[in-house]
Amino acid sequence: MGRLDPRAADVLGRPIIGQLGFHGLDGYPHVLPVWFEYRGGEVLIASPAGAYKCRSLSRDGRAALSVSTVERPYWIVSVVGDAVIERLPEPKRIEFVGAIAPRYLGAEAAGEYIRAWLKGGHPGDGELIRIHPKKVHFSLS
Amino acid sequence: MGRLDPRAADVLGRPIIGQLGFHGLDGYPHVLPVWFEYRGGEVLIASPAGAYKCRSLSRDGRAALSVSTVERPYWIVSVVGDAVIERLPEPKRIEFVGAIAPRYLGAEAAGEYIRAWLKGGHPGDGELIRIHPKKVHFSLS
Repeated sequence: MGRLDPRAADVLGRPIIGQLGFHGLDGYPHVLPVWFEYRGGEVLIASPAGAYKCRSLSRDGRAALSVSTVERPYWIVSVVGDAVIERLPEPKRIEFVGAIAPRYLGAEAAGEYIRAWLKGGHPGDGELIRIHPKKVHFSLS
Repeated sequence: MGRLDPRAADVLGRPIIGQLGFHGLDGYPHVLPVWFEYRGGEVLIASPAGAYKCRSLSRDGRAALSVSTVERPYWIVSVVGDAVIERLPEPKRIEFVGAIAPRYLGAEAAGEYIRAWLKGGHPGDGELIRIHPKKVHFSLS
């Protein structure tokens, strides 16, 4: 992939909910809102183990992620790439969610969210969706 | 399709940007933010003629639309269905955009938007994406 448009990098660095697209097990495209982190040129998404999106992406790793601002002019970033699903052991999962929740919710609401999510300290293993971008498209609308 | 969850109907009736998923011509899923109207049990999206999303959906009509609130608890509506692409003659297109822009932008900003969009009165014919839902899923996150 070529060099990233700095405006695309800007949008991917903000805590905007991403829209994950994948080929569903039913043959239809599916779109789901996700918290994501763009790190080291990859899109990272944590998930409970065995979720529909993970089962679908395990079968067909072709993925899309769309991120856009909510105010006009809309800055729209569309990522298309290949996803792999990795096991996310509980300690790594706690670390990942502990870092991403405050980005999206702010420190205070994140504390509350994480306490509930932790289920007494043992949320169990999860899965990590790692998307390697093939193409990142930036547009204004 | 069975009766719609009233919470799903509520979200689909709000001017929240929808996330349209489709199988791209490159074989990858694609996701794009769109203005949409939910009317008569269908999702309606206007587009310039010949846009990538329309060419893709003309080849494979399987489509998804995801709509979710921006604040927690997230109300998430995922529509999966079959799209048809219809020609949208200029007068109908002006009528459609003239009605949808104020929903998303408010009356004042919409006036400005429409004046620029009209290009002196002749934006030309467009296309209408009409999605007939097969399944509407509501979730809270």
